Amino acid sequence: MSLKEWMQATRERTETALNRYLPSPDHNPKRLHEAMHYVCMNGGKRFRPILVHAAGEISGATTTALDCCAAAIEMIHVYSLVHDDMPCMDDDTLRRGQPTCHVQYDEATALLVGDALQTQAFITLAQAPVSATTTKALIRTLASASGSTGMAGGQAIDLASVGVPLNEAELEQMHIMKTGALIRAAIRMGALAGESLDDRSLDQLDHFGKLLGLLFQVVDDILDCTGSTEALGKTAGKDAAADKPTYVSLMGLSGARHFAEDLLCEARQVIAITGPSGQRLQEIALEIVQRTH
Amino acid sequence: MSLKEWMQATRERTETALNRYLPSPDHNPKRLHEAMHYVCMNGGKRFRPILVHAAGEISGATTTALDCCAAAIEMIHVYSLVHDDMPCMDDDTLRRGQPTCHVQYDEATALLVGDALQTQAFITLAQAPVSATTTKALIRTLASASGSTGMAGGQAIDLASVGVPLNEAELEQMHIMKTGALIRAAIRMGALAGESLDDRSLDQLDHFGKLLGLLFQVVDDILDCTGSTEALGKTAGKDAAADKPTYVSLMGLSGARHFAEDLLCEARQVIAITGPSGQRLQEIALEIVQRTH
Repeated sequence: MSLKEWMQATRERTETALNRYLPSPDHNPKRLHEAMHYVCMNGGKRFRPILVHAAGEISGATTTALDCCAAAIEMIHVYSLVHDDMPCMDDDTLRRGQPTCHVQYDEATALLVGDALQTQAFITLAQAPVSATTTKALIRTLASASGSTGMAGGQAIDLASVGVPLNEAELEQMHIMKTGALIRAAIRMGALAGESLDDRSLDQLDHFGKLLGLLFQVVDDILDCTGSTEALGKTAGKDAAADKPTYVSLMGLSGARHFAEDLLCEARQVIAITGPSGQRLQEIALEIVQRTH
Repeated sequence: MSLKEWMQATRERTETALNRYLPSPDHNPKRLHEAMHYVCMNGGKRFRPILVHAAGEISGATTTALDCCAAAIEMIHVYSLVHDDMPCMDDDTLRRGQPTCHVQYDEATALLVGDALQTQAFITLAQAPVSATTTKALIRTLASASGSTGMAGGQAIDLASVGVPLNEAELEQMHIMKTGALIRAAIRMGALAGESLDDRSLDQLDHFGKLLGLLFQVVDDILDCTGSTEALGKTAGKDAAADKPTYVSLMGLSGARHFAEDLLCEARQVIAITGPSGQRLQEIALEIVQRTH
């Protein structure tokens, strides 16, 4: 199966899993549940679920366990987008070409949708058909990556950085927390769910996850600078307009592109030791960079 | 030790536990961590932690395990207050006599504080010194009680109910979810943390928890109607002013008081079968009702 076909199949099974692990819109409170489905089922790229499944090819995890992990991490990602779009944060009205949650519903509903999606992620993870020890490890991984020293903390630093010049180390730290932590967690969760890898292999995959998270962000900054609103499905040039530091503002477009190539090279070296089972992760790293061309 | 002394001691050990399990304000992002401490360390009643420890007397759980459960459930409770106070929800400026989070900091920080506190609750629970199986049961209990079919769902129904007449069954359902679910979870968590109770005892405690949750809400409605802003530490008469249905608006003050007495009577009967180890829970039920006199 080509990477493209495999990614599409993984997206589809993730959407089936999200439908299964989200509370039904037929159950009370119906409006809240309907809104949770609205924000989760809007044609997202499902990048984190794809990473969960790609890492699962290395660990030999069952697809049901991976589906739980994939749905859970996507719920965390979507909750962060819903809250991030709210007027007191980025105040965005468009997400993947559709009205954001607080526009389609209202602010209070958007707040509760985000809150309940975060909880639902942990409910979903607790249902994974793995040992209790692995459940605990998965929950720790996802919670650590999404809390105040991970994603939420990165958002706090991002908010505080508007108009403040960050150096490369500070910018990297912010991105490692804001988007990198969850990308890294996706790979770690796929690896943990198989219950078979030794600590050294887990560490190696973790390092790959860190590099991939940075790579993803550099590419995102490049696309924010070069892409159109239509192609991105969100408002282009928004970070630059908001005077937020990006890799492009720090390194220039050409510098950011070179940095992305360097990260790709290192990531592919790290993952090479896993052999053929790491092929999907290899391909995904390459695919990320190719979005910039 | 008198109930009053025991409750005070439990409050103090809960605050020590919160300090221990919250990220340090010395660590980045400092402002976010400082705000998380601000909202958690403001002289709360620690009612849910007290219930965790009281149920722990029946299950024989270790105090460290109970401290983790107590800190975790209090973080969930506080996160819900922080989000509930925001302008798009109840728009309250005063909480326990102090400026609410979005007033003291800003809205975006309040949003992230709530988000990160929820995550921190699961991080804390995953650190409890209990078996992985019990950790999983604790996480399921707390997550189910706080998500879209528990606390967050109850808030959604509460929001939708402004100006809408609810009947007794609907009002009860809303409260069972909004405040009852977490009170019930507190008792269940204290019971689970001991890893010793059989299913029948767990069910019995669970039924007690359900009654206590309702009792707490009826008393809260009575106090909202009869108390002063100063005595409550929050704006009195707010629910009535907002045209929200309460037990008092539904049953009248005298009817609500009778209902509270009935609930107390049933709760004390249910808990009596646990013998002397259930004494604290007996006393707490009585104490709740005495707040109305």
